[in-house]
Amino acid sequence: MALGSDIEIARAAKKLPIQAIGAKLGIPEADLLPYGHDKAKVGQGFIASVQGRPDGKLILVTAINPTPAGEGKTTTTVGLGDGLNRIGKRAVVCIREASLGPNFGMKGGAAGGGMAQVVPMEEMNLHFTGDFHAITSAHNLLAAMIDNHIYWGNTLDIDQRRIVWRRVMDMNDRALRDVVTSLGGVSNGFPRQTGFDITVASEVMAILCLARDLADLERRLGDIVVAYTRAKVPVTCRDIKADGAMTVLLKDAMQPNLVQTLENTPAFVHGGPFANIAHGCNSVIATTTALKLGEYVVTEAGFGADLGAEKFFDIKCRKAGLRPAAAVIVATVRAMKMNGGVAKADLGAENVAAVRAGCPNLGRHIGNVQSFGVPVVVAINHFTSDTPAEVQAVKDYVAGLGAEAVLCKHWAEGSAGIEELARKVVALAESGVADFAPLYPDAMGLFDKIETVARRIYHAEGVVADAGVRDQLKAWEDAGHGHLPVCIAKTQYSFTTDPTVRGAPVGHSIPLREVRLSAGAGFVVAICGEIMTMPGLPRSPSAEVIRLNADGDVEGLF
Amino acid sequence: MALGSDIEIARAAKKLPIQAIGAKLGIPEADLLPYGHDKAKVGQGFIASVQGRPDGKLILVTAINPTPAGEGKTTTTVGLGDGLNRIGKRAVVCIREASLGPNFGMKGGAAGGGMAQVVPMEEMNLHFTGDFHAITSAHNLLAAMIDNHIYWGNTLDIDQRRIVWRRVMDMNDRALRDVVTSLGGVSNGFPRQTGFDITVASEVMAILCLARDLADLERRLGDIVVAYTRAKVPVTCRDIKADGAMTVLLKDAMQPNLVQTLENTPAFVHGGPFANIAHGCNSVIATTTALKLGEYVVTEAGFGADLGAEKFFDIKCRKAGLRPAAAVIVATVRAMKMNGGVAKADLGAENVAAVRAGCPNLGRHIGNVQSFGVPVVVAINHFTSDTPAEVQAVKDYVAGLGAEAVLCKHWAEGSAGIEELARKVVALAESGVADFAPLYPDAMGLFDKIETVARRIYHAEGVVADAGVRDQLKAWEDAGHGHLPVCIAKTQYSFTTDPTVRGAPVGHSIPLREVRLSAGAGFVVAICGEIMTMPGLPRSPSAEVIRLNADGDVEGLF
Repeated sequence: MALGSDIEIARAAKKLPIQAIGAKLGIPEADLLPYGHDKAKVGQGFIASVQGRPDGKLILVTAINPTPAGEGKTTTTVGLGDGLNRIGKRAVVCIREASLGPNFGMKGGAAGGGMAQVVPMEEMNLHFTGDFHAITSAHNLLAAMIDNHIYWGNTLDIDQRRIVWRRVMDMNDRALRDVVTSLGGVSNGFPRQTGFDITVASEVMAILCLARDLADLERRLGDIVVAYTRAKVPVTCRDIKADGAMTVLLKDAMQPNLVQTLENTPAFVHGGPFANIAHGCNSVIATTTALKLGEYVVTEAGFGADLGAEKFFDIKCRKAGLRPAAAVIVATVRAMKMNGGVAKADLGAENVAAVRAGCPNLGRHIGNVQSFGVPVVVAINHFTSDTPAEVQAVKDYVAGLGAEAVLCKHWAEGSAGIEELARKVVALAESGVADFAPLYPDAMGLFDKIETVARRIYHAEGVVADAGVRDQLKAWEDAGHGHLPVCIAKTQYSFTTDPTVRGAPVGHSIPLREVRLSAGAGFVVAICGEIMTMPGLPRSPSAEVIRLNADGDVEGLF
Repeated sequence: MALGSDIEIARAAKKLPIQAIGAKLGIPEADLLPYGHDKAKVGQGFIASVQGRPDGKLILVTAINPTPAGEGKTTTTVGLGDGLNRIGKRAVVCIREASLGPNFGMKGGAAGGGMAQVVPMEEMNLHFTGDFHAITSAHNLLAAMIDNHIYWGNTLDIDQRRIVWRRVMDMNDRALRDVVTSLGGVSNGFPRQTGFDITVASEVMAILCLARDLADLERRLGDIVVAYTRAKVPVTCRDIKADGAMTVLLKDAMQPNLVQTLENTPAFVHGGPFANIAHGCNSVIATTTALKLGEYVVTEAGFGADLGAEKFFDIKCRKAGLRPAAAVIVATVRAMKMNGGVAKADLGAENVAAVRAGCPNLGRHIGNVQSFGVPVVVAINHFTSDTPAEVQAVKDYVAGLGAEAVLCKHWAEGSAGIEELARKVVALAESGVADFAPLYPDAMGLFDKIETVARRIYHAEGVVADAGVRDQLKAWEDAGHGHLPVCIAKTQYSFTTDPTVRGAPVGHSIPLREVRLSAGAGFVVAICGEIMTMPGLPRSPSAEVIRLNADGDVEGLF
C-alpha cells in the first residue's frame, strides 16, 4: 500500500459544495447555514420540521480496550458510512468534534484515516464552526456571574468554600489546574482557590450533547448545581440567573455541523464530551436529526465498549429514547496480539498464538454489548502487517461465540474495502433481532447502579467505597437525583482500574474514590481512578512546529 | 419621530444575500467564505489579487470627547457610507467588531443606531465569525507554552518574576484580574502571580489589526516580548516557538468580515483593539482591502479625536501608509451643552448659551485634526430635542473657524438625512487639499513623542514622569525600539487626565505613570491614568435578563 499521509489524502479530496451534501439529505439551501464552502450548520427550524418522520436504523461502532497499536474506530465508522452508501443505503455518519487544545500538545486528531476520513480535516482540528468556543464562553459567563453575585452582597448565601463550578479553557495548560483568584484587594472580590478544566470536560459540553432542543438545553443549564450554601443547600445556575444568557451563547452551537467524507457521504460532526467524566458521544440532536434524514446512521462511542458503549446505551440511548439496531466492535490483529502479551515493538512478526491469547478481551466486549440486546458484528480493521493466519484466528474465535468477524480494508480502499461489513450490518439491522434495553432501571439506587456496571460490564467482584462517598450518593437520592444514570470515570485501557491489566481479567474490585453530581447533564459521575480534566503540554509540544507553509496550508498539526 | 428600537429596525432589515453584497465590490462567490447567509470572510487569495489596484479615498469619522449624552460616531460612520452610495459613490464602511464580554454586563453595543446600522446586529454582538475567540486561543496558547517551557527545565532562563505575558478571556470577570497559578504541587508547575485581561486588550488583537498579511502577522507575533531573563534580556514569542502555531490559529481571523448596512452598503467589520492601551481602529487589512474595492472608504477611530484620531494617524496610517482624504468630526448639540456645563438631566431644555460655551471642545478637535494636514467637516448628529437656534450656534461657531458644520438626520432618515454631509465630504476629498503627515517623525525620542502628543493634541504644558519611567524608555531606545510610535492610554472624557474636566482646558500637565512595550504590535504604551484591562460585571448584569424568546430571537442584549 502506498497511500499518502492522512492530510495529503484529505487535501486531495474532491469535496462537493456543502449544499450538495445537504441536498442528499433533503435539506434545502435556506436551512443550511454555511461556514465556508464545505461546512454548514443545519437550522433549528428545519430540524423541528422533520420531527414527525420515521427514524432510520442506528448502528453503533465501538471497540475493544484501546491499545498503543491503535484500533481505528473512527476510521471504521467513516468507512462503514461510505460502505452503506456504496450498497445503496442512504447513510449518515455521526461523530464527535475534536478538542483544540490537545492538538498543540501531541500530534493531532484526524477524523478517521487513510481513505476513510471526514473533511475538511484542518478546520475540524482548529476552530471548526466555533462550538467549543461558545461552550467555553457560556461556562465562563456562569463562573463570572457566581463571583459577581458574591461580590455584590451574596444574597444567595453561597459558601465560598463550596463553589463547585470551575472555569474552562480549550487549551492544555497545567498552570491553570489549581489557582487562587480575586487577589489584589477589595475591587477584585473575595480570594478563593479554584481551577480550570479543559472545555471538553465542562458540564455545559455534556448538556449540549444530551439536550433535545433549545428549551431542553435551557432547562438543563438551569439545573446545574454550581455551589452550596452554608446550610449545604444546592445553588443552581438558575438561581444565578445565567441560564438564559448561556442559552443565547449556545444557540448556534446547538445546531449540528454537516460535513462530508472523502466519498461525499454526509457526516454530522457535533459535540465532544469527555468519555470519562462525561458520556463521550456526539450530540443527541445530531443523532436524532440524522435518523430523520438517513436510512442508516453510523455513530461511535468513546474509548472501548466497557466505557463508551455502556455510556452510549445507559446514558445517551436511555435519555434520548434511541434504539440501536446493531453494533460493530472494531478489533485489530495487532491489538489482539498486545492483549496477548506482545510488546508494541514486536507487532510486526506473525504470532497466531498471541492473537488467540488476546481474543478474550474482544470476547468479553461482544458479550457485554449483546447483553444490552444489541446484535454484534466484529470489524477486523486490516493492517498491512496482518497475516492470513492471524486474521483467521480472530474470525475463528468470534465464530466460536456465535458471532461473525469481517475483515475490512476501508483504510486502504475506502468503501470498496468494507462492503462485506456493510452487508452484514444491514442483514443484522433488518433481521429485527435487536431488542435494546439499558443495563439497569432508573429506579435502582445510585450505588447499586455503579455496582451493576462494575459486575456486569467490568466483570469485577464489587465496588469499594468509603462511607462518605456512599453517604453522598444517599444524600443525592434524598434530594431527588436517584433516578439519574451513572457515568463511571475509569481508565480506558483495562476492565480493571489498573491500565496495565489487559485481556479479560476477573477477581478485581473497583475502588470508588469520589462522586460528582452533573444535575444539568443528568448523570452522577463515579470516579474510579486518577482522572485528569486539564492536560498539560509535553516537553516538545507540537505547537513548536505547527505553522503555515508558503501555500497557506497548515504544517505540523497532523 | 416614532422609530422602533434599534433591534426592531435591525430585525426588519431587508438584507441581501452576502454574495450580492460581495458582488457590489466585485468579489467572486468563490472568494467569499460565508458564515450563514449574511456574513462572509474575504479570502486571502482575492485580497492578494487586488493589491495592484489604485486606492479609493479614505474618510475618517472621529468625534469630540465622549459625554454621557452620546455622540453617535458609529451611527454617523454607517450613515455617511449609505449617504455616499446614495449620491453615486461606491462606498464601503469599515468599523470594529464588538467585544462579547461587556455585552453581558451593561446593555450591549449595537453597530450604529436608528436607520444607520450594520446588520446582523445580534450576531455581531455575540460570536460573529469567531475572530475574538481565535485571538483568545492564540494568546493563551503562548501563555501555556511559556509556563510549559519553565516546567520542562527553563532552558531560556526566564525570570519567573518578569513574565509580562498574561492570559485573556472575552468576559467581564474581575476575579481573574489578579491570580496565582500553578498551585497544587510539582505536576502543576511553579506557582506565580499573574492575571487575565479582556481579549480586546491583548497585544495579539493589536497585532492582528496592524498586520498587512499573514507573513507580517507571523513576524509581529514572533516579536512579542513575553518575559525577561535573570539578566533582563527580553524573551520573545519566537524564542518560545509559539509564533507559527499562533498564526495558524489566526489565519481565518485575519480575513476581513463582510456584512452590510440597513441600506445594503458593504461594511467590513474586523478587529477591535482597545482604544487606550492599543490604537482602537479596525484592522489594516480591512481598510486596505476596502480601499482597493471602493471609491470611498468610511472608517472610524475610538473615543474622541484626541485619543482615537491621533492614534489612527500616528499609528495606523503611519505604519500602513494610509493617507486620509478628509475627516468628519461628530458633535451633538447635547454634548456641546454638557461641555458647556449642563447636567444630563437638563439636556431637554433649549440652552444656546451653554451650546456656545461648550463649542471650544469641538474647536480644539477641529484644529488638532487639521494639524495632521487632513481637512475637516463637522457632522451635527441630530437629536429630536435639538432646537434650530442651538444647531445654528454650532454652525456659526464652526464657520468662525473657517470650517463647516452640517446637520445630519441619518438616525431618523437613513441616507436621505445625510446627503449634504456626503456631498461636502466628496468636495473636500476631491479638492486635493489633504496633505497628511503624522505628528512626529519616527526618529524622535520616545519621551519626546509622548510630550509632543501631550502638548500639541492635549494642549498640556508638559509630561511629568519619574526617572524610572524615563530610564525604561531610554532602555528601549537602546534596544532598538526608539523608532516606534507611542500609544497613550488616558481617559477619553477630557483633554486632561481628569475625566471630569470638559471643554478645552489649558495649563494642565500629563502624569506618565507607566510604560509598556508592545514590540509585536509596534508601539510603546504610555499609561497616563487608571486603565482597566479587565472589566467587572455590575450589580445586576444584563446577562440576568438575556434570553431566547419563543421565536428564537435574542431578548435583553440590546
